[in-house]
Amino acid sequence: MNAEFIALGTEILLGDIANSHARFLSLEFAKLGIGVYYHAAVGDHLGRIVSQLQLALERSQVIVITGGLGPTDDDLTRNAVAKACDLPLVYDEDAFQSLIVPYFDKLGRPYLEVHKRQAERIGDAKFLPNARGTAPGQYLEWNGRHLFLLPGPPLEMQGMYSDEVKPILERISGSGSITSRVLHLFGIGESAAEAKVLDLLQTQSNPTIAPLAGEGEMLFRITAKAQTKEEALALIAPIEKEITARLGQYIYGYDEDTLSLVVFRRLLEKRVKVGFAESCTGGLLSSMLVDIPGSSEVFAGSVIAYHNEVKVAQLGLSESILLKDGAVSEETAKQMALGIQNRLNCDFGVSVTGIAGPTGGTADKPVGLVYVAATNGQTTTVARHVFPGSRMQVRVRAAKAALKQLLDLLNDTEVKI
Amino acid sequence: MNAEFIALGTEILLGDIANSHARFLSLEFAKLGIGVYYHAAVGDHLGRIVSQLQLALERSQVIVITGGLGPTDDDLTRNAVAKACDLPLVYDEDAFQSLIVPYFDKLGRPYLEVHKRQAERIGDAKFLPNARGTAPGQYLEWNGRHLFLLPGPPLEMQGMYSDEVKPILERISGSGSITSRVLHLFGIGESAAEAKVLDLLQTQSNPTIAPLAGEGEMLFRITAKAQTKEEALALIAPIEKEITARLGQYIYGYDEDTLSLVVFRRLLEKRVKVGFAESCTGGLLSSMLVDIPGSSEVFAGSVIAYHNEVKVAQLGLSESILLKDGAVSEETAKQMALGIQNRLNCDFGVSVTGIAGPTGGTADKPVGLVYVAATNGQTTTVARHVFPGSRMQVRVRAAKAALKQLLDLLNDTEVKI
Repeated sequence: MNAEFIALGTEILLGDIANSHARFLSLEFAKLGIGVYYHAAVGDHLGRIVSQLQLALERSQVIVITGGLGPTDDDLTRNAVAKACDLPLVYDEDAFQSLIVPYFDKLGRPYLEVHKRQAERIGDAKFLPNARGTAPGQYLEWNGRHLFLLPGPPLEMQGMYSDEVKPILERISGSGSITSRVLHLFGIGESAAEAKVLDLLQTQSNPTIAPLAGEGEMLFRITAKAQTKEEALALIAPIEKEITARLGQYIYGYDEDTLSLVVFRRLLEKRVKVGFAESCTGGLLSSMLVDIPGSSEVFAGSVIAYHNEVKVAQLGLSESILLKDGAVSEETAKQMALGIQNRLNCDFGVSVTGIAGPTGGTADKPVGLVYVAATNGQTTTVARHVFPGSRMQVRVRAAKAALKQLLDLLNDTEVKI
Repeated sequence: MNAEFIALGTEILLGDIANSHARFLSLEFAKLGIGVYYHAAVGDHLGRIVSQLQLALERSQVIVITGGLGPTDDDLTRNAVAKACDLPLVYDEDAFQSLIVPYFDKLGRPYLEVHKRQAERIGDAKFLPNARGTAPGQYLEWNGRHLFLLPGPPLEMQGMYSDEVKPILERISGSGSITSRVLHLFGIGESAAEAKVLDLLQTQSNPTIAPLAGEGEMLFRITAKAQTKEEALALIAPIEKEITARLGQYIYGYDEDTLSLVVFRRLLEKRVKVGFAESCTGGLLSSMLVDIPGSSEVFAGSVIAYHNEVKVAQLGLSESILLKDGAVSEETAKQMALGIQNRLNCDFGVSVTGIAGPTGGTADKPVGLVYVAATNGQTTTVARHVFPGSRMQVRVRAAKAALKQLLDLLNDTEVKI
């Protein structure tokens, strides 16, 4: 059984709003083990909607159409489905009284004559009640196809999906589960990581292994199909073990993990606090940690030392080091990390100093050169990176590299009570 | 001329990532006046990609395909386009040497044999250089169609669009001009702003006026159609004047402006430097300014004072104020702004202190309460806000409010020579 989604609305094609329906529905269908083969978005134009529907009816068993169920002239979904399936569209007074009138009663507002259009039924479709808006949905079985017409506002669509559509899908899709496990890696490029597991990538069909490159990091998604979730997980386990055996040193987290979340949890477990000394990242590193609710438990504060005077005055950097090695150097990074740890009186100090570009590079110190230092007071680690890409990319990668270096130091540090 | 976008990637159909390309490209195409009729997303499956391409080639003049340009076996875009257009796919050693090898040289990593696949040219397509990644794009003219193959990572795709695709589209889209003028507003809600210009919104058809809500701010896009750009601009001018007469106090910028860009330009014009003292924004405010190339000219540095001890030690906040008024208070905000200005020895100091949530609020000091102070040493302004929304929304709105408050103070301050 395979599915596709069609989102209607010229505002999507103009870029005024994102098509958030596609992602919501994809995640839900994956949970049910129904393969989604296509997403589409089409404007409020009858001919184009009908032809998109005809295509979908040829190639997909389940079709979800979102939007275009309102009462106005540019709400074309009912007409388009009736036309594509060659079915009549008939006003249903009972449906109007039972599904639409009570909503207006609740609002304390009168309905308008145009709202009757929302009670026009396509063939023998079943109306789907909308607890959150005026437009009921419809569920149509036609020539072995299952069509669901859902309203456009995201909260209405999502509510109707959970209340009405999901139970129908569970019934018609029968058994089966698609389950995924995600391994997050940092410090290795996508191609290099793939090369290490190429034999697995090429031979595995269930589970499948999909690599995905992120900004400065990458992940492998292992996806298995089976009758039950437990069986799917049992298929995934040996593959995960094998990838971990080959690439374990780069794996920092699983599933919904992010670098900052993993760092946050580790700091919390160890009951320690960190402070950051940022130069080229300019607050981005701190902000990644502060994004996490509860970060005040583990984050003392930071100094963003963009100018050298600030590095000297606020972090205690020695002017002789600045003169000798420069602001972007191993020694400066070390002193910045020790300086912030000392000045903020916290357990860990991490520093980033580099050249984000697009200008300011030299032959010796090119754009993208970044030093990261991390210290716990006793041990201080320093790494030199040259990141490719734009100013923003260099900064994002530098901030992530700093989080990873902190994580590595945390993992090597005894628990403090 | 009409266009459609095809995003490739099973991860989109699984809901792991949103198809952010569609919205980015839609907004860009709207600016160029090229109508977008369809968005599609398809998985990494050769047959389905080819059939989606064949459909697109029938119905659209411009087709943008994003993703699937990497070096691995599930990167199918090149093969699919070659197949759909019945064109050969030939490895181009010169392209490999000039477009791909230098990127690896810069990274200081060797390329792998698989990367040569990225230099396989479809028919007589033109390669599009990728300054931000290993995968070059391709531009193919075929049977009156214009196909653009762009890489999947958003920053690479967006960069290649701006550098390479946009100039080609401007050339080929030719006659007629749709021109837009965007007015950016801060400090007024979308509904309140619309109410002030409702008569214009309801009566204008050329130009049209579209309000659009952003995160804590909003904009009006005035769009005119005419034979030439000059004629379109002449249609826009009186509408812009009228909106400015009614809402000028809230307008902070135009077109591509952002708050941080406008603040940066003003600081640069006045040859002054700013420092930030951030609490709940946790580096976000600093990062917004550091995003801008050249920000070192105007930005001295910041202290992120998450813990009270840091506010005292690094910003000179008096402990008695902290005890009496608390960390989130008018007096604390003032002292933080003066403290950073003084400690970093810069011309302007701006502070943010608040409760980002989701916990930590009280009846007196609810989640979302934020104080912003801005000072030039003589004048200090303080504002109290209560922002709705999630932790991230509160932080973004607080950082933007701080930028706007700095801008207002800059506009009231004499130029320093």
